[in-house]
Order: sequence, then C-alpha cells, then structure tokens
Amino acid sequence: MSEAKAPVDFYFDFSSPYGYIASQVADEMERRIGRPLKWRPTLLGPVFKITGQAPLVEIPMKGEYSRKDFARSARLHKVTYRQPGKFPIFTVAALRAFYWMDELDPTKARALAKALYRAYFTEGKDIGASATVVEVAKSAGIDEAAVAAALEDPAVKERAKREVDAAIAAGVFGSPFFVVDGEAFWGVDRMPMLEQWIATGGW
Amino acid sequence: MSEAKAPVDFYFDFSSPYGYIASQVADEMERRIGRPLKWRPTLLGPVFKITGQAPLVEIPMKGEYSRKDFARSARLHKVTYRQPGKFPIFTVAALRAFYWMDELDPTKARALAKALYRAYFTEGKDIGASATVVEVAKSAGIDEAAVAAALEDPAVKERAKREVDAAIAAGVFGSPFFVVDGEAFWGVDRMPMLEQWIATGGW
Repeated sequence: MSEAKAPVDFYFDFSSPYGYIASQVADEMERRIGRPLKWRPTLLGPVFKITGQAPLVEIPMKGEYSRKDFARSARLHKVTYRQPGKFPIFTVAALRAFYWMDELDPTKARALAKALYRAYFTEGKDIGASATVVEVAKSAGIDEAAVAAALEDPAVKERAKREVDAAIAAGVFGSPFFVVDGEAFWGVDRMPMLEQWIATGGW
Repeated sequence: MSEAKAPVDFYFDFSSPYGYIASQVADEMERRIGRPLKWRPTLLGPVFKITGQAPLVEIPMKGEYSRKDFARSARLHKVTYRQPGKFPIFTVAALRAFYWMDELDPTKARALAKALYRAYFTEGKDIGASATVVEVAKSAGIDEAAVAAALEDPAVKERAKREVDAAIAAGVFGSPFFVVDGEAFWGVDRMPMLEQWIATGGW
C-alpha cells in the first residue's frame, strides 16, 4: 500500500447526531480525498468520565443550541433527521455487532453501521437495545442468530472494549472525529478542513 | 434602516483564540454579507458557571487538541498567532474600555478591540491588566487619561455588566458567537454556514 493510500480513521459514536450526519456524507468524501476511510465506532461515555464533559443536550445553553443545530446541520447536508425520543443512548451492543461483522466483512460492517444510524436517527428505534440491533442487522441481510450470538461472545466484547481503549489512546474526545496521518479533525463541520489538509498536504 | 441591513451580532471574549481569529476576518465577512456586524465583547467566565464548562485548554484530551487547533486554524485563515504564556485571562478591563469607547465612537471601539486582540495574541501582552489596556488604547490613538478614568467609572462598569448579562440572555455560550435574525452560529468554523444562511435566507 503506498503512503498516499493510507486509511483515514473515522471515529464516531452511534448515539451522536453529528456522527450520523458524517456517516451519510462519508462515502462522498472518501471518493474526493482518494483515501479509504476506516470506520471506527466508539463510545463517548468513558471519554466524558475522563474529560468531565457531558452529553451536549444536557449542558445548559449549549444544549438548546445543539438540539436546533442537529436538525439544521442535517438539512444543510441534505440528510434526513428525526430527533430520537430516547437520547442520548448507550450503544455498546451496536458497537459489538459492528466489530464482529468487521472481522468477517468490512463492507457489510459499514452497511450495518449505516443501517443502525438510520434506524435511530430516522425511525427513532432504540439501537441501545440488543434486540433492536439484531432486528436492524437482519434487515441489512445479516444472519439473525449469528449476530445475536456475537453480542454475547466474550471475544467480541473484548474486541469492542479494545477499540474504545484505542480511540481514547488516539485522543478521540468527540464524534465524528477523524485522524489523518496523526492529524486530528473533530466535528462534521471540520470535514472540509480535513479535505483541504489532504489536498494541500497540510499547512 | 431596511430589514436587509439589520446588524448581525458578533459576540466574543477577548481571551478567546477563535474569537481573535474571527475578529481578523470579520471585516471581510461583513463586506460579503452586506450587513453590519455589531461587535459585542462579553465574558465567558460567568457562562462557564452556568454551563458547568471549563476553558478549553483545561479540559483533558480536548485541551491538547485545542492548543494545536488554535495555531492550525490561525494559519488556515492567514492570521498571525502566538499562544500567550498567560492563558486564559479574565478580560473585564478590556470589556470596559471597549464599551466606553463604543458609546463615543463605535469605529474607534472596533479598532481598539482589534488592537487589544493583537496585543494579546501576537505580542503576548497581558490585556487582563488595566495598565496594559490603557497602554494599548494609547497606541490606538485614544487618550490615555480618559480611558484610565473610564475603567474606574461606575457607569462604564455597569454598561459592561449589562452587556455580559445581555449576551447570556441571548444564549451566548462560546466565542465567537453570531446571531443573525435570532439564528445563532457558534464558532469561527461556522462563519461560512452563517454566510450561506444569509445568502440563501436560511434552510
């Protein structure tokens, strides 16, 4: 693999509206930058314990702005968005399903991630629940029994935990969060900056 | 004044790197949007007490990213930037000088704001100190004795306090923060979105 084709890490939390929006425009960006995106779902809950932060909507003042901005940003990017009633949620089951699938077939894992995001942010399905994750996986053409078993598999649980630890070690404190050749870009509104960084070789 | 010419509020904290960068590109944006910017310095300290937030650089993980991103964002916008040694600082004296001048001559007040920002973010001068504010004002062609007296004037202090209260009432929780016809945009990286909003009439 030539250096120019080294992957760009794309970290996100399945409960993150901005991560969802990024996921919907990520393929287009991937084509433009000419480098593969490595989808790396993670959990922000453990990060908030380190940073002392809270979910956006729970922060006074910032929360009101954010609720409005989720929908406004989605409209800007022409992404369907419906604010889920239960929000935010803890998405470790989605994470496990993703990484299990990722070892078998990364393309299918990416399709599963998109299906999970759509289920949550357009249909309001609680993808925090294992049963919902199994249902969404099934609708994405994944064997129902296999994914249900994977969610309880200690090796899969361990893999998901390792991925969260790796994201924290990489400095990931928000969603979406991109790392290109060690350079970090946080936020869906920083995707143009990331593209510019790659196109120009940095500044 | 026709509705199209209604001012856009530009809130910022004199200790904010992103506010500084915004101040350096604000005039260009003002010309492009065809509406006057109303410069409204404020203090984020009282806001952090409400939101439970902390200055960026004091937040684990986010702090390291931010320090790097201040300089990176400045380079992107071709703005000279030197991280001040004393950072962040409490800038109520700068605020008072600004609003005192603003009542006499808004154009001079804007020039003073730029001079204060440059003194802090390019020369590392501690504009948290009243003596430095007076010195910077003098270099910007403002009478030294008059500004020194203004900093101690109860009416000026009251005006500055009212402005901070008004910013909080308007929902300002960060810097820079723009409000156009009731629509809020937070961050120097949201200035293109604000321009698009004005150009298109919103979405």
